[in-house]
Amino acid sequence: MKAVRLHEFHQMPVIDDISEPTAQGPFDVVVKVGGAGVCRTDLHIMEGQWDTAMGTPLPYVLGHENAGWVHEIGAGVTNVDVGDTVILHPTPTCGLCRACRAGQDMHCSSSTFPGLDGSDGGMAEYLLTSARACVKLDPATRPEDVAALADAGITAYHAVRKVIPLLYPGTTCAVIGAGGLGHIGIQCLAALTATTIVVVDRNPDALALAEKLGANHTVVADGKHVDAVKDLTGGKGADIVLDFVAEEGAENDGFAMTRPGGSYSVIGYGGSLTIPTLDIISTERNIIGNIVGTYNELAELMVLAEAGKVTLHTKAYPLDAAQEALADLDAGKVRGRAILVP
Amino acid sequence: MKAVRLHEFHQMPVIDDISEPTAQGPFDVVVKVGGAGVCRTDLHIMEGQWDTAMGTPLPYVLGHENAGWVHEIGAGVTNVDVGDTVILHPTPTCGLCRACRAGQDMHCSSSTFPGLDGSDGGMAEYLLTSARACVKLDPATRPEDVAALADAGITAYHAVRKVIPLLYPGTTCAVIGAGGLGHIGIQCLAALTATTIVVVDRNPDALALAEKLGANHTVVADGKHVDAVKDLTGGKGADIVLDFVAEEGAENDGFAMTRPGGSYSVIGYGGSLTIPTLDIISTERNIIGNIVGTYNELAELMVLAEAGKVTLHTKAYPLDAAQEALADLDAGKVRGRAILVP
Amino acid sequence: MKAVRLHEFHQMPVIDDISEPTAQGPFDVVVKVGGAGVCRTDLHIMEGQWDTAMGTPLPYVLGHENAGWVHEIGAGVTNVDVGDTVILHPTPTCGLCRACRAGQDMHCSSSTFPGLDGSDGGMAEYLLTSARACVKLDPATRPEDVAALADAGITAYHAVRKVIPLLYPGTTCAVIGAGGLGHIGIQCLAALTATTIVVVDRNPDALALAEKLGANHTVVADGKHVDAVKDLTGGKGADIVLDFVAEEGAENDGFAMTRPGGSYSVIGYGGSLTIPTLDIISTERNIIGNIVGTYNELAELMVLAEAGKVTLHTKAYPLDAAQEALADLDAGKVRGRAILVP
Amino acid sequence: MKAVRLHEFHQMPVIDDISEPTAQGPFDVVVKVGGAGVCRTDLHIMEGQWDTAMGTPLPYVLGHENAGWVHEIGAGVTNVDVGDTVILHPTPTCGLCRACRAGQDMHCSSSTFPGLDGSDGGMAEYLLTSARACVKLDPATRPEDVAALADAGITAYHAVRKVIPLLYPGTTCAVIGAGGLGHIGIQCLAALTATTIVVVDRNPDALALAEKLGANHTVVADGKHVDAVKDLTGGKGADIVLDFVAEEGAENDGFAMTRPGGSYSVIGYGGSLTIPTLDIISTERNIIGNIVGTYNELAELMVLAEAGKVTLHTKAYPLDAAQEALADLDAGKVRGRAILVP
Repeated sequence: MKAVRLHEFHQMPVIDDISEPTAQGPFDVVVKVGGAGVCRTDLHIMEGQWDTAMGTPLPYVLGHENAGWVHEIGAGVTNVDVGDTVILHPTPTCGLCRACRAGQDMHCSSSTFPGLDGSDGGMAEYLLTSARACVKLDPATRPEDVAALADAGITAYHAVRKVIPLLYPGTTCAVIGAGGLGHIGIQCLAALTATTIVVVDRNPDALALAEKLGANHTVVADGKHVDAVKDLTGGKGADIVLDFVAEEGAENDGFAMTRPGGSYSVIGYGGSLTIPTLDIISTERNIIGNIVGTYNELAELMVLAEAGKVTLHTKAYPLDAAQEALADLDAGKVRGRAILVP
Repeated sequence: MKAVRLHEFHQMPVIDDISEPTAQGPFDVVVKVGGAGVCRTDLHIMEGQWDTAMGTPLPYVLGHENAGWVHEIGAGVTNVDVGDTVILHPTPTCGLCRACRAGQDMHCSSSTFPGLDGSDGGMAEYLLTSARACVKLDPATRPEDVAALADAGITAYHAVRKVIPLLYPGTTCAVIGAGGLGHIGIQCLAALTATTIVVVDRNPDALALAEKLGANHTVVADGKHVDAVKDLTGGKGADIVLDFVAEEGAENDGFAMTRPGGSYSVIGYGGSLTIPTLDIISTERNIIGNIVGTYNELAELMVLAEAGKVTLHTKAYPLDAAQEALADLDAGKVRGRAILVP
Repeated sequence: MKAVRLHEFHQMPVIDDISEPTAQGPFDVVVKVGGAGVCRTDLHIMEGQWDTAMGTPLPYVLGHENAGWVHEIGAGVTNVDVGDTVILHPTPTCGLCRACRAGQDMHCSSSTFPGLDGSDGGMAEYLLTSARACVKLDPATRPEDVAALADAGITAYHAVRKVIPLLYPGTTCAVIGAGGLGHIGIQCLAALTATTIVVVDRNPDALALAEKLGANHTVVADGKHVDAVKDLTGGKGADIVLDFVAEEGAENDGFAMTRPGGSYSVIGYGGSLTIPTLDIISTERNIIGNIVGTYNELAELMVLAEAGKVTLHTKAYPLDAAQEALADLDAGKVRGRAILVP
Repeated sequence: MKAVRLHEFHQMPVIDDISEPTAQGPFDVVVKVGGAGVCRTDLHIMEGQWDTAMGTPLPYVLGHENAGWVHEIGAGVTNVDVGDTVILHPTPTCGLCRACRAGQDMHCSSSTFPGLDGSDGGMAEYLLTSARACVKLDPATRPEDVAALADAGITAYHAVRKVIPLLYPGTTCAVIGAGGLGHIGIQCLAALTATTIVVVDRNPDALALAEKLGANHTVVADGKHVDAVKDLTGGKGADIVLDFVAEEGAENDGFAMTRPGGSYSVIGYGGSLTIPTLDIISTERNIIGNIVGTYNELAELMVLAEAGKVTLHTKAYPLDAAQEALADLDAGKVRGRAILVP
């Protein structure tokens, strides 16, 4: 089969012809890929950043945002059948560790991350995953329409879901960054709360989209944006700040625009927080970390997607055009999410 | 009456003879002081640190940790009577703002902080406070025995209470600092959870006391303490870290000894956290701020104190010896808490 | 002033001319009534049901759902000023008991219930209440448009708010009764969750309205409705059942249509539950009681109302027509809520 | 191997010689039984009660409270090895349904209940179970000492754990029934909270034991016990009532001794609740169902057991004496828990 494999860092991955995966273990599932999201993280992988972090043997197939149809199942698989339309949780988990037993998939002590940690991902005709990664979809769903929810979507949803109890009517939630993850987060906030949504972004086009998706106020990140958020909240700051950027200063601005007793929730990364402990305790603010989400959260997000409450802007590329898709992304030419469709 | 008043920064406060306060407003309560805690914060006030932060007109009476007996009540006071033994919440609150209506006294939009913000405190024979600050005690309680719970105690209890649901059996809670607040926190943990308590302190004597109070393991803060806590937790770190120091590097060590999915809870202050956002998100850790506590938390803590589950080491000084008490504290000569007894 | 006073049970109340109330205590507030809801509970009061329950000395002014403008304030009132538009929490609370200190207004140990417990209510030109009952509104709000939210609204909102964390996407919430409270509950569910809303009522007109307000499915309560709800939920039952009727068998049906692990939440009353304890434990279901709500919940509900997310159908009557309004209500002629407008 | 099999209802089970189970599926685990608890439920099974409820084909091996050593493992088992000491969760679960993915083992859509639902239980030399049921123990643990925690223990722990956040200092928890489950519940309360524990039982010996285990007050269930609990709680009732009996009137007494705003939690069964919905709403009380517990809860309970915070009174019988053990239990001759030791 065709597969987009990375052979060398700082080089484009190439289309290889490799053998199809098969279900060997009892919980193995082979999925015929219907859509594989192209993500900024893929560019970081190509630059070698993740190799530095975790060591990733080359070559391997990229693609960590995948949806498709079940092609083959192992002997112990009972939750999906051949032919089912599925979206895949990005980290197949063991199901036996204490974190898995609590439903905390993102803290599994022995999960893998296909397409990122060196195991083969979904930019290919077929992908090997596990029963525990498969969320069954309405057969009418087109995998290419939802694939990007498998990673970008679940992460945004997870961050929003944790703060719902804090976002009762009358509160304000500031969202920093209305890009790939942020624009999903805004839709989740609008679907699940009646909080006042304030979106902060450098890009006026992104803010215009944010308004359509449910933002009540938008603020251009022009250096005066912390004050602007405070002005919109009676001088106090937002009850919750969801920071989908968290680099280049956004992180310290994000904490600064959080009101006393509020929480600054980090989803993006790249920057560094510097905060006197006096500022944390005198105002009793919290900082919340977020990574991916649970299996059930992906299933819940798909309910929102199937109900039309969360939608994605996507641009499809054939698998053969993977290099073009990556280059477009790198050049800022992709509006919404690029999706490879084998 | 006699009162310990600060007239100039960087000078000792002096014993003045001033007129007794009287109940003017409907909710005013005048308390005959039975014990007033002497706190490191008093030294900081004398150094002018709080004046910098909030502006504190001189002179005023020090003393923000107070207990005693009700001496006079305003016309609208229904929760205490003259003669009642009471401990005082440190920040009399308005009772009408949204924070007060949610029971979040520490976020009241118009509270005062007698003995700290420029209004007269409790290092005197009598103190003016409000009905909302009074927690009624068993008449047999000696105010001087519990006064230090009014501020140090409530703060430690508040921080512990917030994390109880996370400290189920099998978890580990690391406590940094077994001093004034920390040794109360350890007792609260032992009374309210079955978590494994690991206490970190530079001082072996403090660690010896910690063991008597319920610590399961103790670690000398000698530079290898982060690794020591990790070794005690299977290499992962503590589920919860309660940092009663949060300065001189303790704060970054505290975050470093927190396990993935865990929370670093800040009670002390003085230092500065520096954390890459990647470290927050890749492990999904949280940082929790803490300040004072609620009225009900002080009432709950008094239940623990009256049951003998939280006890304090105190050293009594007559009111006239206030300068001596402050000097002893500054010189590190006070074991436990110095209490002025008018 | 004119006031609608009940002089004898089983008789219509009459329009009396009584003296206007004045602010005596420091927290007293006199409100010029702008709208007073006429509620089925008023009919029950007239029948003597509440007298049996709590003893209610006659005569007194009816009216427990009130909104208007502040007319006079006591010396200690800081949260509202003369002229402010306000809606009134139905039970002025003491602010000092442990329940009040936790924000649990409905469990105040010494609250009153004007218009119901024998103290004068709001079917009059002026009403005496307390600072703690006043929720300040946008001056543009017409009291008669929102008065019914003061009791019917807060109760429905309170019940919904408690179960929001359980109503994640993919769950089903069954609502029994789409009348006065139920139709507010449906709007709250639609505004605050993405759950699937199934509404059960005997009245097809009420169901038609429910669909407009956000119901995803409607079920006529025709004896087969428990099975109908199960059919809509894969045979399992609803995750949450909100029972706004809870009499004439609705209560046992409500429990029966709750899925294993789910919760049956009671808002209506009049009937009696009979449940084998085996049925409770073998399926681990819960039963949740609800009464009124907190001050902050009323404030939150007003945010939804001002945003147009919760609206009420009302029919205005002049104060002089109180008997007509009560008779219309008793005869089933009131569509939505009858409001007396002095 | 020897196994205690039930061949006919209303007859004693007999010791059969049957073939040993073997690991067939990838997640199968065969355990050499070290202790199998003899439970009142076994008597109910023999009486045919569970056959009525779920249909249980005869003959099958009894025993649903088991601990022992791993004897054989399937190809996919990674969490235990041959030779490990283990206690077994009573309901091996699928690991793939939404309840399992949330850690809610007791709501698994396809679990089994060996020794109860017709599949072979642990009153035998060997037992077939699954990897997901195995909680690994300290090798020094004697299975016969802890076996009864596998069902009685987890159920009591689960009920206590759910209400911990409600049992802050100053609250009261009433425990009805200090027998098999109740005496574990009391120990869990004492280990995990500082609530005031009031134990109600008909048997003064059980109450004497309860005091040793941590009860602060004991009340003989003599018909005046509801009033006695109210007297101990200022006339209001207990914040939480844990009812380990829930039959013969205990259930309605239990609800009656619950304070306004409190919760009545049901663990026992056999009786029937009859409650006017007015009583539920006017006091805003809750009723909480409980069944077994999660895998992680069993693991947590074993931490308490290994720390000596929860201990069991047991009486060992050889497997051949199964009939004697069942007869002793039926005759009320077993003090603590009877354990079969193969």
